[in-house]
Amino acid sequence: MATATVTIDLNAIRQNWQKLRTISSKDTAAVVKANAYGLGVKQVAKALYDEGAKIFFVATAEEGAELRFILGKIPEIYIFSGHMIDDTELIKNHNLIPLINSIDQLSRHSELLKEKKFGVQLDTGMNRLGMEPMEWEAVKERALSLNPVLIMSHLACADDPKHKMNVTQLNTFRNLTNKINIKKSLAATGGILLGPEYHFDLTRPGIGIYGCSPMKDCLPVIKIDIPVIQIRDIRSGETVGYGNTWTSTAKKRIATISAGYADGIFRVTGQKTKLYFEEIGCPIVGRISMDLIGVDITDLNVEPDKLELINSQQTVDKIAKCAGTIGYEFLTSLGHRYNRYYKGVSK
Amino acid sequence: MATATVTIDLNAIRQNWQKLRTISSKDTAAVVKANAYGLGVKQVAKALYDEGAKIFFVATAEEGAELRFILGKIPEIYIFSGHMIDDTELIKNHNLIPLINSIDQLSRHSELLKEKKFGVQLDTGMNRLGMEPMEWEAVKERALSLNPVLIMSHLACADDPKHKMNVTQLNTFRNLTNKINIKKSLAATGGILLGPEYHFDLTRPGIGIYGCSPMKDCLPVIKIDIPVIQIRDIRSGETVGYGNTWTSTAKKRIATISAGYADGIFRVTGQKTKLYFEEIGCPIVGRISMDLIGVDITDLNVEPDKLELINSQQTVDKIAKCAGTIGYEFLTSLGHRYNRYYKGVSK
Repeated sequence: MATATVTIDLNAIRQNWQKLRTISSKDTAAVVKANAYGLGVKQVAKALYDEGAKIFFVATAEEGAELRFILGKIPEIYIFSGHMIDDTELIKNHNLIPLINSIDQLSRHSELLKEKKFGVQLDTGMNRLGMEPMEWEAVKERALSLNPVLIMSHLACADDPKHKMNVTQLNTFRNLTNKINIKKSLAATGGILLGPEYHFDLTRPGIGIYGCSPMKDCLPVIKIDIPVIQIRDIRSGETVGYGNTWTSTAKKRIATISAGYADGIFRVTGQKTKLYFEEIGCPIVGRISMDLIGVDITDLNVEPDKLELINSQQTVDKIAKCAGTIGYEFLTSLGHRYNRYYKGVSK
Repeated sequence: MATATVTIDLNAIRQNWQKLRTISSKDTAAVVKANAYGLGVKQVAKALYDEGAKIFFVATAEEGAELRFILGKIPEIYIFSGHMIDDTELIKNHNLIPLINSIDQLSRHSELLKEKKFGVQLDTGMNRLGMEPMEWEAVKERALSLNPVLIMSHLACADDPKHKMNVTQLNTFRNLTNKINIKKSLAATGGILLGPEYHFDLTRPGIGIYGCSPMKDCLPVIKIDIPVIQIRDIRSGETVGYGNTWTSTAKKRIATISAGYADGIFRVTGQKTKLYFEEIGCPIVGRISMDLIGVDITDLNVEPDKLELINSQQTVDKIAKCAGTIGYEFLTSLGHRYNRYYKGVSK
C-alpha cells in the first residue's frame, strides 16, 4: 500500500480543549472552521461536543449547515463571515448565528430574518472583519434594539504577548462595548494566554485545540507515516530528484517515500526536514515531487517499510517552520489522499 | 454566500490533451494522479476517456481502483508506485498494471499475481523510482520472460530543454532497452516538447493537460472567483491583517474576501499577487489568513460582490511564481471548500 496515513488523536483534542477551558475565565467555545483546521469536522466537532463544548464557530454558512447536520439541534453555531447574500435560507433552516460585519449585513439580516439570532463583529484595528468604530456608532442603537446575542472582535497580534497592538485592541473593544450588557468575546487561543482581562464572557480557541503554537504544553494531535516504495544505493556525484538540485557527496542509501506536495508537504520544505525511523532522523534530499520524496537513510541499519514525518520529535510547528509558514497552514493543507485514522473515537 | 468558486473547463482539458496527442509520435496516455492534479479525477478522467484517451497513469493502487470504478473495464491503468505490500488484491480485482520498480516488487508480483499484467520502471538517473541499471541487468532476463507490457522511465530535467541531463537519460534509456521489443515510454509533458526522439511508443502528459508550464499555447483550465465579505475605508497609518505586517501609506479602500490558505492560496503568496475586477488588478495587502484576505480596491470605482484570483490575466503559473512554487503545486493544493463547477461536461 503506497498511501500515507494521518493518525488524529481525538483524546488529545479533547484534553487540549479542556486545558483552554480551564484557563478561560467564563465560557469556552471551539473553532472548527476549514474542516476543523483540516483534521475532519465530523470527528473533531463530535468529540468536542461530547466533551462539553456547546458553542462553535465556523467561517461560512455552508460550514455551519454541515456542522448542524453533524451535531444536531442543541449547540450554538456562529458564522464569522456573517449574513452574506444568498445565505438567508441556510441561516434560517439550520438555525445559524451570523456575526454581522457591516451595515449592509445588518440591514439584510433585519429585513430578511428579523426574528433570528445574530451577533455583532466589531473591528478593533485588524481591518479584516467587523464593523468599524464609526459604523458601529452610527448603527449601535438600531443593532442593540434587535437584541444581538454576542458582541465580538478579533486580535491581530495575540501570538506575540508583548505586541502593543494587544492592549490597543483591548481598550478599543472596551470602549466600543462599554455599558452594553450583552455577552462579549475577544480572545482566540493567543488571547486566552494573554490573561483574564482578554477573556470576557466567551473565549474561542482554535489552534490550541489542534496542538500547535502559540498554545504551550498542549498534546500533539497528529502523526504522519509514509510508506517506503523502494531503496537504492547511490555513488558520490549522483543527483536525486527533479532539476538535479541535490548531488550526493558520498556513497548514500536513498529511500523513495510515497507522499509529496499533493499531500500538503510543501515543495519549499527544505532539507532541515527529516523523516524518522524510531529515534533516527533522515533528511529529505532533492526536490519534493507531487507524490514522492527522496530521503537519505544512510544512517539506518535497517530497510524500513515506512518513515514518520510528524511525530514527537518533529512536530507540526517544526515542519511548518522548515517550510517558512505556521502550523495552521500545514494542518489545513493536509491533502485528501491520506488514510485518516481517528484514535479515541466517542462511544 | 461566502464560499469561493473554482470553475474547471473540461473542454480546455480535452483540447490540451488533443494538442499533446498531435505532437506525440505514437500513443498518448493521460496522467490523472493526485485527483487529476487536484481538479477532480471523476470529471477529468471521464472527459479524457470520452475524448479518446485509453491509457491512464496514477500514483497508487488506491487511485487506480477509484479510476477503474469511474471509467469501467476498458482502459489500461498503470500504477507508478508499482506493486506494494498489500496492493495485491486491489491490483487483481481492478485489473491494474503496476510499474515494477525494484527486484522486491518483481518477486512479489511474480509470486502473487503471476498471470497479471505489469510494466517495468527503470531509473535512468533521477534516482527516484525505478530499477537501477545494475538491478535491471541482474533481473532483465527473468523479467522479460514474464512478458511485461511496458518499459518506462522518467526525465528529471525535461522542463529545461537545454539541460544536458535530458540527453544523458535518453541515451541511458536506449541502452537499457536496446533490442527489447516491448512498448516503451519516456516522456511526460516536458519530454513531449523535447522532440520525437523522446516519444517512443507512448507519451504520458500530465501538467500540459491541465494548462500549465512547460506546455506552451495551451488553454487555461481553471478560473477562481472569491466573494467579497465587506469593504472598509482606512486612513494612512492603519494596519491590515495578522501581525500588523502591512501599513497603509494613504487613504485606502480595503475589501475582505472569503478565501485564504485553507483554500490553497499559499500564505507566502505576496503582494505581487492581485485580485481582479474585470481588467483592473487589486493587490493583496497584509497576511493571508486561513479564510480571509485583504485586498486594496482603492482603484475601483465600484463595490464588487466578488473578485477573481485566477483568470486570463493572472494564470496558475503566475500565482504559483508569486508563492515561490510551480503551477503543479497550486493545482494540487486547491482546498476542499470551493464550489466546483465543471464546464463542458460530457453528454
